[in-house]
Amino acid sequence: MPQGFRAGGLHCGLKKTSRFDLGVIVCEVPAQAAGVYTLNAFQAAPLHVTRESVAVEGKLQVMLVNSGNANACTGKQGDTDARGMRSAAAEAFGVAEHLVGVTSTGVIGELLPMPKVLSGIEKLPAQVKADGGEDFCQAILTTDLVQKMTCVQLNVGDKTIHIAGSAKGSGMIHPNMATMLGFMTTDANIESAQLQKLLNAVTDSTFNMITVDGDTSTNDMVVVMASGLAGNDTLTPEHPDWAAFEAGFKYVGEYLAKAIARDGEGATKLIEVTVAGAATQEAARAIAKTVIGSSLVKSACFGADANWGRIIAAVGRAGQPVQTETVDISLGDIVVLEQSRPVKFDEERAAEYLKGDLVVIHVNLHMGNETATAWGCDLTYDYVRINAAYRT
Amino acid sequence: MPQGFRAGGLHCGLKKTSRFDLGVIVCEVPAQAAGVYTLNAFQAAPLHVTRESVAVEGKLQVMLVNSGNANACTGKQGDTDARGMRSAAAEAFGVAEHLVGVTSTGVIGELLPMPKVLSGIEKLPAQVKADGGEDFCQAILTTDLVQKMTCVQLNVGDKTIHIAGSAKGSGMIHPNMATMLGFMTTDANIESAQLQKLLNAVTDSTFNMITVDGDTSTNDMVVVMASGLAGNDTLTPEHPDWAAFEAGFKYVGEYLAKAIARDGEGATKLIEVTVAGAATQEAARAIAKTVIGSSLVKSACFGADANWGRIIAAVGRAGQPVQTETVDISLGDIVVLEQSRPVKFDEERAAEYLKGDLVVIHVNLHMGNETATAWGCDLTYDYVRINAAYRT
Repeated sequence: MPQGFRAGGLHCGLKKTSRFDLGVIVCEVPAQAAGVYTLNAFQAAPLHVTRESVAVEGKLQVMLVNSGNANACTGKQGDTDARGMRSAAAEAFGVAEHLVGVTSTGVIGELLPMPKVLSGIEKLPAQVKADGGEDFCQAILTTDLVQKMTCVQLNVGDKTIHIAGSAKGSGMIHPNMATMLGFMTTDANIESAQLQKLLNAVTDSTFNMITVDGDTSTNDMVVVMASGLAGNDTLTPEHPDWAAFEAGFKYVGEYLAKAIARDGEGATKLIEVTVAGAATQEAARAIAKTVIGSSLVKSACFGADANWGRIIAAVGRAGQPVQTETVDISLGDIVVLEQSRPVKFDEERAAEYLKGDLVVIHVNLHMGNETATAWGCDLTYDYVRINAAYRT
Repeated sequence: MPQGFRAGGLHCGLKKTSRFDLGVIVCEVPAQAAGVYTLNAFQAAPLHVTRESVAVEGKLQVMLVNSGNANACTGKQGDTDARGMRSAAAEAFGVAEHLVGVTSTGVIGELLPMPKVLSGIEKLPAQVKADGGEDFCQAILTTDLVQKMTCVQLNVGDKTIHIAGSAKGSGMIHPNMATMLGFMTTDANIESAQLQKLLNAVTDSTFNMITVDGDTSTNDMVVVMASGLAGNDTLTPEHPDWAAFEAGFKYVGEYLAKAIARDGEGATKLIEVTVAGAATQEAARAIAKTVIGSSLVKSACFGADANWGRIIAAVGRAGQPVQTETVDISLGDIVVLEQSRPVKFDEERAAEYLKGDLVVIHVNLHMGNETATAWGCDLTYDYVRINAAYRT
């Protein structure tokens, strides 16, 4: 973990199993902070509260999260409850309220059982430890199968800095911040405003380029906290090591985004779609997202069926200009379409490739120089099973 | 069947089973015609050819269709083949080429086996009969389970007229004309231009309001042919019986649209989403389509789980203005959300309702007077099974 951060988790009774459902990241100093939030019109109460906290002085010291209940569509009471969580955490950890962020994930529209949550928050400080990352990760999972964490280390001037991240994803993941929670921490010295700009840019090419099922949750957000304890000269785009820091930050974002996609509900594989040769960045992204979001493409990948017709149909319905005579498509290194014409390929080899746990779809439009990549997963029986019975 | 029309079908070898795969509708006179076509950028070759035919004098006499192969993304050869089908049909039925429309549905990106198709077209006139509607319907099916046909009868002045329709749908159905073929015939006397206007309006509120999986095909279209043989005074919006005719026309469109949604790949039920109280028609439609298109809502309906949180999450991500404090939601007559607040409801009764073969979701935004309805189906194991192995 980056210097200054500890984490922890416990079971307070929101999940029916005994898995952890309340987690926290604590910084020993108020950390520079930035956040990005779901674009869903029904933003859940905790998001308002976190945004409000960050707005005060661009800092967070305690980031509290619960799973099992999203505290979304819960009206005024939900707002009161989110504030209640914030003030309880402020008291438990001895920090000012505006240095506390809160977030929730789980079922929508049910009030939080506040006695359980508050009693959990009281017990939380005793569970916080330097190696509490895994406990925290367990506490943020819903239908996730695997914990998602990573950390990179790099030099800024003569200081070694770290950038770490953890995330929760699975269903309802879609571009524009779907049911996904991302937490990044770094010991780098960087100002809140700069951190926010960097987070926005990185989110656009990572978290906002993944989709599991096209739905967008009311609760998602990514929060970054920077303790500054590495003691480097303040990072700005003018700093000689800015590019390295930016690359490290993007690496962590992309790692988490891909991990979320790969662990999509019911998924058996990660699908990566790169659209090259687009006239604009917007077109490249829109087309990549449309292909990765296609239920037909996703089902075909599950069935290891090299049905590229579904890929080109998705390219054509993305609402972006395409030249219908110049499209190339390949699956891994197997070219299936060249200049919009089918290429004879070895079906068996293609099926073998599609059976793997990573499918790379490459589309070249030959209309310009812009490229974008989106990530998703296959659509499987298990996706249906999980979502047919999520609440009951 | 409306006066003047006959139909037929046969097996020419495009489908692996012995089911019919080539069908035709024939009118004894050149019929006034209108068509709407997919908005996918990769419009299949036969659509170009049909559009070209209709453009000549707004008439069609023979409408030819094959299933098993979409003749899409087949380049210049595909274009030549679609034209080849048109001229062969013109010859077989003894009409001018520009009175023939052609369309294809099935796998994308494979060339049509033209010898089979041409030999089928030669044999087709012998299969055409007054009660050939069912044969025609069988010939247009791909993964459809049931044939979709309807006919209404009404009076225009002192004449009895008929409006009939048949359709093919199933997977890849989405607003804006997805893999769906619709054929409407009427013996009413109406001009092509007027028919086109009516078809556009009706398509917007029927065929374009259904979705199975959010994908949009390269091949879809709806074609109307009017023989005029009922002998009524030419129908225009000024005609005293225009409203009745329009209602009959819309009834047929809506019937077919709902039948397509209900027969969505793997579907066990029809889902109908009505959004009322919207400020604009555009908002009502966009929100209805977003809810009906949500994989999470569809899975919950399959699992009979009254998870209205997914409905409101879909309302919130439709990209339309909503008041977050005034939304009502009900499932059938069970109110689950009132003024954005959860209402206690009988879970067992709700589960019982959701197990039925029709689920009506009603959303009231309380922001205005506009209403729109969209139709779709649940997302099931069978959808995945069918689409994981469609081509192989």
